[in-house]
Amino acid sequence: MKLCRLGPAGNEKPAIWKDGRWLDVSAFGEDYDESFFETEGIVRLQNWLQSHLSECPEIPSPSRVGPCVKKPSKIVCIGLNYADHARETGAKIPSSPVIFLKAPSALCGVSDPLIIPEGSVKTDWEVELAVVMGKKASHIPISAAMQYVAGYAIMNDYSERYFQLEDTGQWTKGKSFDSFAPLGPWLVTADEIADPHQLHLWLSVNDEIQQNSHTQEMIFKIPFLIHYLSKLMTLFPGDIISTGTPAGVGMGKNPQKFLKPGDIIAYGIDGLGEARQHAVACRS
Amino acid sequence: MKLCRLGPAGNEKPAIWKDGRWLDVSAFGEDYDESFFETEGIVRLQNWLQSHLSECPEIPSPSRVGPCVKKPSKIVCIGLNYADHARETGAKIPSSPVIFLKAPSALCGVSDPLIIPEGSVKTDWEVELAVVMGKKASHIPISAAMQYVAGYAIMNDYSERYFQLEDTGQWTKGKSFDSFAPLGPWLVTADEIADPHQLHLWLSVNDEIQQNSHTQEMIFKIPFLIHYLSKLMTLFPGDIISTGTPAGVGMGKNPQKFLKPGDIIAYGIDGLGEARQHAVACRS
Repeated sequence: MKLCRLGPAGNEKPAIWKDGRWLDVSAFGEDYDESFFETEGIVRLQNWLQSHLSECPEIPSPSRVGPCVKKPSKIVCIGLNYADHARETGAKIPSSPVIFLKAPSALCGVSDPLIIPEGSVKTDWEVELAVVMGKKASHIPISAAMQYVAGYAIMNDYSERYFQLEDTGQWTKGKSFDSFAPLGPWLVTADEIADPHQLHLWLSVNDEIQQNSHTQEMIFKIPFLIHYLSKLMTLFPGDIISTGTPAGVGMGKNPQKFLKPGDIIAYGIDGLGEARQHAVACRS
Repeated sequence: MKLCRLGPAGNEKPAIWKDGRWLDVSAFGEDYDESFFETEGIVRLQNWLQSHLSECPEIPSPSRVGPCVKKPSKIVCIGLNYADHARETGAKIPSSPVIFLKAPSALCGVSDPLIIPEGSVKTDWEVELAVVMGKKASHIPISAAMQYVAGYAIMNDYSERYFQLEDTGQWTKGKSFDSFAPLGPWLVTADEIADPHQLHLWLSVNDEIQQNSHTQEMIFKIPFLIHYLSKLMTLFPGDIISTGTPAGVGMGKNPQKFLKPGDIIAYGIDGLGEARQHAVACRS
């Protein structure tokens, strides 16, 4: 299944993308949140659809594609997890995963505008494969880790490099601006992705390809990341793990290249769909 | 008012601490979560209590004092915000606030055990004044910032220094272990704290005083922090800002001193109550 949430921010309706159509599944009575995943919502929705699919109204052209998960309790990101990206940023290959958190308030949909923060001069892109957790996970062995995955989606881990790297302190500042965590268009359930380490991923700015890589390039693979993170913190159903970005970010170009209002950022991952966002100025 | 949440983890009842007694206010029908704060819950509860106080059952000895806020969407922490603490850690006084996020899964109550993580050799304490947000805040001027405060509580920003500082990457790893964010015992509403920058705060380990300072030592004050953070990310009602710790952490001692199973950590802040926790080994 491909789960999505359609409509105005804060009032999205749960829907599915099936055979080229958006279908409203509000009648199922639940949204895609922690409680949904915790109670085997994916299996229950699949069963429900067997007798109710024909009654689900089509939404021919949704006004908005919202984030495909409602209010994840946390967004955990992995830094420098592609060897080619570590090289381009001048960083060493890490000996263990680099972990940081993105504020959940940064979450948005993949058709929402990217808001360039006030005073930003170095807003950068990072297409990433995001893992959505399906169960509560604490101290999970590597061998069992994949049983905890609900599915996958595309995340763009937007990063303001001045605030991330040159201002005082931790990366948090440059990673957590509102609109800096688009997630979608769908949550593709795990059964539809045979191997998440065999996916092509790409990103373009104004139709010029910037990132063009493959998830097989990940340094730390998904089972290890779940195992490792689950020893650092309890992961909850619906939590997001964004697994790092490949080479081709603006900071790594020569000369460096950053986003400005008016730019169009498009990106996609095999089997997970595509995204297309406009960059706009902050209107504070 | 002093708002608290009593009972087993995940099944706490909303309560108040009044005149030396714990009173169950479940009959009000709401818990202290984002929705409560967003809809002027403090004022509504105050009004409700005017006619229902006498009907609120006393809880003579609660089995557990849980976190005083239910599921904050984020816990934002300020690093190196006391000049004496910056000195003891060898860090420079920051030119702008150092910001990091603690995983909300670290939240617990101030009577819960502190779980020393598996493999930890450098678990440290940090008593802090926490601000609980009362309204959604984005791009707030300094002059208006205090109107966004619901109240205050004690936070202990426990930190595993090896994972925070010596392992790869960002501070997140050492800051987000389960039980590393006790919050309470009460949320003291803002009207009861005349000046949050005029509070004594202290912490002891096994009855030996380690931290003994005053919130007037903060480098960046609360109105500025709210203003500053609200430009970096939208703050939601119920969100926590932990404003930094004063001198006296274990890492700053000579020789350094860290926590081990069996230790008793006690701490308090003027007007906000006291906490007392036992350190226990991780039972993974």
